[in-house]
Amino acid sequence: MSLEKTLAHIDAELPAATERLMELLRIQSISTDPAYAEACDAAADWLVADLATLGLEAAKRPTPGHPIVTAHGAGDGPHLLFYGHYDVQPVDPLELWNRDPFDPAIEDTPAGKVIRGRGASDDKGQLMTFVEACRAWIAVNGSLPARISFFLEGEEESGSPSLVPFMKDHADELTADLALICDTAMVAPGVPSIASQLRGMVKDEFTLHGPKMDLHSGHYGGPALNPLREIARIVASFHDETGRVTVPHFYDGVQEVPDALLRQWETCGFDEREYLESVGMTRPHGEAGYSALVQQWARPTLEINGLWGGYQGAGTKTVIPAEAHCKITCRLVGDMDPDAVRRNLRAHVEAQLPPDASVSWDQDIDGAKAVVMNTDRPEFETARRALSDEWHREAVLVGMGGSIPIAGLFKDMLGMDAMMIGFAKEDDRIHSPNEKYDLESFHKGIRSWARVLDALSR
Amino acid sequence: MSLEKTLAHIDAELPAATERLMELLRIQSISTDPAYAEACDAAADWLVADLATLGLEAAKRPTPGHPIVTAHGAGDGPHLLFYGHYDVQPVDPLELWNRDPFDPAIEDTPAGKVIRGRGASDDKGQLMTFVEACRAWIAVNGSLPARISFFLEGEEESGSPSLVPFMKDHADELTADLALICDTAMVAPGVPSIASQLRGMVKDEFTLHGPKMDLHSGHYGGPALNPLREIARIVASFHDETGRVTVPHFYDGVQEVPDALLRQWETCGFDEREYLESVGMTRPHGEAGYSALVQQWARPTLEINGLWGGYQGAGTKTVIPAEAHCKITCRLVGDMDPDAVRRNLRAHVEAQLPPDASVSWDQDIDGAKAVVMNTDRPEFETARRALSDEWHREAVLVGMGGSIPIAGLFKDMLGMDAMMIGFAKEDDRIHSPNEKYDLESFHKGIRSWARVLDALSR
Repeated sequence: MSLEKTLAHIDAELPAATERLMELLRIQSISTDPAYAEACDAAADWLVADLATLGLEAAKRPTPGHPIVTAHGAGDGPHLLFYGHYDVQPVDPLELWNRDPFDPAIEDTPAGKVIRGRGASDDKGQLMTFVEACRAWIAVNGSLPARISFFLEGEEESGSPSLVPFMKDHADELTADLALICDTAMVAPGVPSIASQLRGMVKDEFTLHGPKMDLHSGHYGGPALNPLREIARIVASFHDETGRVTVPHFYDGVQEVPDALLRQWETCGFDEREYLESVGMTRPHGEAGYSALVQQWARPTLEINGLWGGYQGAGTKTVIPAEAHCKITCRLVGDMDPDAVRRNLRAHVEAQLPPDASVSWDQDIDGAKAVVMNTDRPEFETARRALSDEWHREAVLVGMGGSIPIAGLFKDMLGMDAMMIGFAKEDDRIHSPNEKYDLESFHKGIRSWARVLDALSR
Repeated sequence: MSLEKTLAHIDAELPAATERLMELLRIQSISTDPAYAEACDAAADWLVADLATLGLEAAKRPTPGHPIVTAHGAGDGPHLLFYGHYDVQPVDPLELWNRDPFDPAIEDTPAGKVIRGRGASDDKGQLMTFVEACRAWIAVNGSLPARISFFLEGEEESGSPSLVPFMKDHADELTADLALICDTAMVAPGVPSIASQLRGMVKDEFTLHGPKMDLHSGHYGGPALNPLREIARIVASFHDETGRVTVPHFYDGVQEVPDALLRQWETCGFDEREYLESVGMTRPHGEAGYSALVQQWARPTLEINGLWGGYQGAGTKTVIPAEAHCKITCRLVGDMDPDAVRRNLRAHVEAQLPPDASVSWDQDIDGAKAVVMNTDRPEFETARRALSDEWHREAVLVGMGGSIPIAGLFKDMLGMDAMMIGFAKEDDRIHSPNEKYDLESFHKGIRSWARVLDALSR
């Protein structure tokens, strides 16, 4: 096995690898919107076909939702399961994109070349770094450096409803020595990062019902209950003036960050000022007394992701609407229990309802606990050294503000530890208009995986 | 002149009159949405053609917005100017209509026959009661009972931007002895009503800007300013727990209702319980200490008509949006000054802004003071008697929660008093899905105007 030749092959084949990623990015696999179900299916087909060209035993596995793609390749050494997701976030507001989100291209920017398009970073670009590393390894060495399985889902951006049933039914097939996940960001540009803790998530959504019908704000303004005013009052009641969530028992299970970890984070390369200024903020707006880093990695949140009701068109409509709507996600840390968080949130909302109002809740519930990785396993130090070699900079263990429930599920359901290595950058605008992935992330990401696979297989 | 023959003619011609109204209702004259500009023009054309068939000198008068229709008919007696509007409110949410809002029909309901469609009541049905009364009068008597002018605008539902300039330019043409307006409701079913006071209105709209772009609620949830949370806090700050508006100086110019007027209102036939229950409310939700009637007719409001931001589609999007939006209308009473109300509202919002947030305001501003009619004029008692004869029930002078700025403009700009007589019912769902006008309102409305014209011309 030759790592150097493999890396040289990766460099030479980068244009072809990029073109393959472009093909995948053109598929409009928005999982949360049923209108794109066929596109999700097409993305799964594309991956099956591509993995088959590596000589892997690849299959599209049906689920009640979007299909799961699996593939298995023989090899010596440890059994590694790679997880990624081929589905993407919705693209609205479309008018804020500088190009069609599903017509990707390489763009020159002051900070270098980027691949622009929905999913370029989250997660199609990231998952293809691993696929391309395997492809190069096989091309140069004739076989994989380890026994490698792929487990690619199409519902990560919509709560992964089919994931747990599929894992239950195929536990033996999916259980490996270690899971590898490529869906996270580097803590700072050029600083290779292994995520060692992730926040969990609970989502919920409610409709506040007031008058039986939309009312005229002249004939009923005053006497009528206005659901927009009431939902604003309820939303405003979620936080106190220090930014702390007021829902009773919300903080049950939250621990303060140990001093030793806090000191480690302080030197990990995270640039708070850059993090805030890049999105137009001069200070952190979360709970008073915590740095932006701790607010993001180690404190829970209750965020409003959507709030709407009444007239939104051009001009004026003097309406008091019959209902108002609110979408919420909470990020969880420590031992916070997703079911308890949802229960307490709902009780808080219901306790705030005025007479003549009612609330209905979304039935499509799910949640995931926060995850802390088993960093005592030697593979973490092995991978950390391999990453440091590629990036010429010491790799670090970091927290993550996002939620990737799969790591917790691997541990809880399969007894399998996971290691999360990702090459995204904080300015990738994932979930936003103009999502991009640095060409450097893609290129050095592929090279990083080649090095990590090489190191893990020794 | 024969009133009895005219009334009989109205009865006989009701089907033809209804069919004419249907034609007008089919024209999608939504004035607030530029997409319907051609339809507004078509509605004006239809009215010009119809008024010409009465032998009136009718014309479509261009404005920078939607055209104004004028028509003049010779006659003995006083000069009366009739005002109405041919534009209608938007129709969303479309899925709540039981039929295409622009494919009107007569429907049988437990409460009798109704004309269903957008504008059936507000204001096409109402304005056509006057047109049909004139048509019948001419058909039976060969001429009008008075000198009558028509002044029909197409921007009433969108702030009437062209109205004041047009009135300024054509003051002589529009000034009559008395203005008649048919755009109000009866205080209770079968109780003929003359509106003697109307609330004024201020509209405003703002966008709260937070982060430079939409953010991921995992990577930025916590440190990021969330515009949805901030706009909710600001909206919630508009009222205290007693329902009183907290904007400083909001109540400047508001007077309490005199006891004598309050007693008169208490016996005018308004059924508070029915008014509330018909829309699903068990109690009035406005300022504590005031009845629903007083909250509606004589107290100011600050209502949210639209509130939105973030993701509204199916499923979840873990976004912190860059901005959030709010549409507001205030109803004014007494001497409240629209400009001061807007200024104080904006100052209140701006005082609530957190660091890193900014606000931008709609530039399309307008406002109208509240109006109190000159009920000392003898025409009010004359009309009251004529209406009582038609409805076999004593007609009453009432307040109105809605805003019809034209009455104040007639007084201020032309020195002309106005009398507002309308036949709408509180359950007409104007501005809402399934708007209707009772066939009885249309029929007896035409007969009422025939009687009022007869009485005023004597």
